[in-house]
Amino acid sequence: MDERIHEHAKTLVDWSARIEAGDDVVLSVSEGAHDLAVAVAEEVGARDANVLTLYDSDEVDRAHTRAHGGEFDEDPEFERALYENADSVLRLGGGRNTTASADVPSEKRQAKRRSRSGIREARMDTDWVSTVHPTRSLAQQAGMSYEAYQEFVYEAVLRDWEELADEMAKMKELLDAGSEVRLVKEDTDLTMSIEGRTAVNSAASVAYDSHNLPSGEVFTAPYATEGEVFFDVPMTINSQRVRNVHLTFEDGEVVDFSAEQNESVIADVLDTDEGAKRLGELGIGMNRGIDQFTDSILFDEKMGDTVHLAVGRAYGSNFPPGHEDEANDSAVHVDMITDVSEDSRMEVDGEVVQRNGTFRWEDGFEG
Amino acid sequence: MDERIHEHAKTLVDWSARIEAGDDVVLSVSEGAHDLAVAVAEEVGARDANVLTLYDSDEVDRAHTRAHGGEFDEDPEFERALYENADSVLRLGGGRNTTASADVPSEKRQAKRRSRSGIREARMDTDWVSTVHPTRSLAQQAGMSYEAYQEFVYEAVLRDWEELADEMAKMKELLDAGSEVRLVKEDTDLTMSIEGRTAVNSAASVAYDSHNLPSGEVFTAPYATEGEVFFDVPMTINSQRVRNVHLTFEDGEVVDFSAEQNESVIADVLDTDEGAKRLGELGIGMNRGIDQFTDSILFDEKMGDTVHLAVGRAYGSNFPPGHEDEANDSAVHVDMITDVSEDSRMEVDGEVVQRNGTFRWEDGFEG
Repeated sequence: MDERIHEHAKTLVDWSARIEAGDDVVLSVSEGAHDLAVAVAEEVGARDANVLTLYDSDEVDRAHTRAHGGEFDEDPEFERALYENADSVLRLGGGRNTTASADVPSEKRQAKRRSRSGIREARMDTDWVSTVHPTRSLAQQAGMSYEAYQEFVYEAVLRDWEELADEMAKMKELLDAGSEVRLVKEDTDLTMSIEGRTAVNSAASVAYDSHNLPSGEVFTAPYATEGEVFFDVPMTINSQRVRNVHLTFEDGEVVDFSAEQNESVIADVLDTDEGAKRLGELGIGMNRGIDQFTDSILFDEKMGDTVHLAVGRAYGSNFPPGHEDEANDSAVHVDMITDVSEDSRMEVDGEVVQRNGTFRWEDGFEG
Repeated sequence: MDERIHEHAKTLVDWSARIEAGDDVVLSVSEGAHDLAVAVAEEVGARDANVLTLYDSDEVDRAHTRAHGGEFDEDPEFERALYENADSVLRLGGGRNTTASADVPSEKRQAKRRSRSGIREARMDTDWVSTVHPTRSLAQQAGMSYEAYQEFVYEAVLRDWEELADEMAKMKELLDAGSEVRLVKEDTDLTMSIEGRTAVNSAASVAYDSHNLPSGEVFTAPYATEGEVFFDVPMTINSQRVRNVHLTFEDGEVVDFSAEQNESVIADVLDTDEGAKRLGELGIGMNRGIDQFTDSILFDEKMGDTVHLAVGRAYGSNFPPGHEDEANDSAVHVDMITDVSEDSRMEVDGEVVQRNGTFRWEDGFEG
């Protein structure tokens, strides 16, 4: 087995999920993630922890969902009981066809999702971590050869996370001390309040309230947004390619929008509910191991020289303890990314903290 | 998809497991059983039942078991909770390498098995059914081409189960009325008490207390075993080929044993615990759709003209209601088969019920 798969498994089990002896670990394995599952099971076993392995097959799920009448039982007890008794859930993505569920009617897909909110909550109450095993299907989505895609994934995953966490702590400190963020670039001049919010140093570990491997971003939950913002990184939203989105905010809400491709997707998203018109996240990509866009939000939003904003649901981890329910509520959380490598700046309370992608503590920073 | 896979799935879901709307169905999928899993998920969905899919990977299990220190936690709660809340467990066998776990030390394998008796009980308290998807690995184990093996499997699985159930009822009647079974052939003269036991007409359906698809046997739980028995059908136990096993019983327990190949495997099995030295099952193969040995116990033991005995755990279904806990208890249940097509007879209370493979109600029976 490729030694990098073992390294990936060790990083997941030790750094990300902090598995300890006696932990009850659910391992959820996508169709193409078998090799990583074997390596992870070995690491979990070596820590004298227990494992139960789920088969997270898009084709099995598609077959069940399509054949079902559509009146889905609310949170089937056997599955909720599994997660309620689990300590960790390790989700190994990596399917064999990113469009395997393209012909599941969206009403049925949504009905199934809605019926499982208790199961989802129980799963998210564990020390869960999502990662991805490189597959040919994902390489194809990224427009890359398989070998190059493997290198890309391991470059992003196998980092010195402790060092990156230390660097990201500087950004968290700036955001925690600040009241207002301003982002300026082409067709963009946006101000957001972050007063009273707590930034998350998302260092790919449950010890940092971070549940993605790779991660490498600092994010917070902005509000009272004013101005305009332009997202020049193409992305796939609800299976459709969207390009060059422009949003205008007044009083914290989107009041105007446009997109050069599939504008109706953005219209649908903003129309979901009241919370979908407000921001749920401001994230600053700081993983310089990610050096190209691969049409996967797990990687794209963590890339250095990018900033992303999400409309919709905010994370409770950005609020002081006891205030998690003040987070913006919505059925959606849609991330959109803007390239800040050139002709851009981000200010906190009027002070420039990043210019043309370079942070204030880095060499070459021009305040 | 091969239409026979859909037929297999329908037989499993309707005839075998009797899945109904709202049932919580655990689908356990071996590495090579993906296609059958998709077909079964479709049938489960069409009945408006819920599904949770497990990945029953030999390689994942091997990696975890080998790496583990060996002090396995007793019945990890998350897994027990899953089965305790499930209605049905459908196990789809069919791996990619029947010797995938050959290098797991047997002490560790046994320790893990022993630590999971509560989980096993919870699983067996559901309407569980085990079946097999034909894979190239199983074809190889059987010494057959893939196409011929597929035909073999579907010939065994896609039967008129109702008709076979009617024929097997005759054997059940004989055993239920009898007190002692005697088996006589080359190197074999074994008597077993069956007084107070209930024979199971194993017609591949939970409605018949039968949990294998294919099935086609009548089995009971013998005790007070005396004498010797010779198993001339080769089989694979714990990934190792075992031939010509000979067991000697006194007072219901194995007191001597030999085998012409891999005798140590038998030693390990008998050494697992106290119950491993006693019989857990006497089974009479009656599925004439199975016409050759394929080195798979699921099929071999159901073949017409064979009788099998298992050391280890007995099934509660062979006991009157309320007496299930009198069943022989063990972490193992290892079946061994003897060919009764020639020079053999089976008696119930001194009366011959099968001679040279022919049952007393069949043409050509020579009492």
